[in-house]
Amino acid sequence: MDEKEIRYAQDALYVLSGKWRMPVILALHNGLRRYREIAQSIPGITFSMLSKELQIMELNNLVLRMEDPDFPKHVEYKLTEYCESLYPIVESLVNWGREHRKVIST
Amino acid sequence: MDEKEIRYAQDALYVLSGKWRMPVILALHNGLRRYREIAQSIPGITFSMLSKELQIMELNNLVLRMEDPDFPKHVEYKLTEYCESLYPIVESLVNWGREHRKVIST
Repeated sequence: MDEKEIRYAQDALYVLSGKWRMPVILALHNGLRRYREIAQSIPGITFSMLSKELQIMELNNLVLRMEDPDFPKHVEYKLTEYCESLYPIVESLVNWGREHRKVIST
Repeated sequence: MDEKEIRYAQDALYVLSGKWRMPVILALHNGLRRYREIAQSIPGITFSMLSKELQIMELNNLVLRMEDPDFPKHVEYKLTEYCESLYPIVESLVNWGREHRKVIST
């Protein structure tokens, strides 16, 4: 593994970092699509934090924003395939983190 | 996946975060043990940054510091098994990051 590969890993880490990034990825992965239901599923997040997070994710090709042509107010969000491909890493982080808690609490 | 699991994932992310954490994990994983050779393998790191990083990693049970009883100055470092168990996640981050670069550069 060389310097270039370390940068790749740090890129991926960056995409997953941030207080709300993984909770939003999880909510969308679990099939929540509407703004209000996503917000309600994430304890502590405010509407403005969620809207900023979704904007950043859209810019970074992690989320698709879909407007209903007949009902412009009716907006839905969906993870891009590209972002879904992160999900196995999120699961491996969860598993490692669970073990981590056991190690540091013994 | 619930809130508790998100915290596990964020714990794991935290362990991997920081400019020098993955480069140091990689150097030790690749078998480098002595302070000078670790520092020389990581472009841009200074001795004081490395020593701070190794101290934090030792405190967090990620690194073992081994002194030679006959030669106290002769210190070696080694990843703990616990930290080695992170290595597959680092590799999956590298792979995803490599693809990520292709996506954002097309």
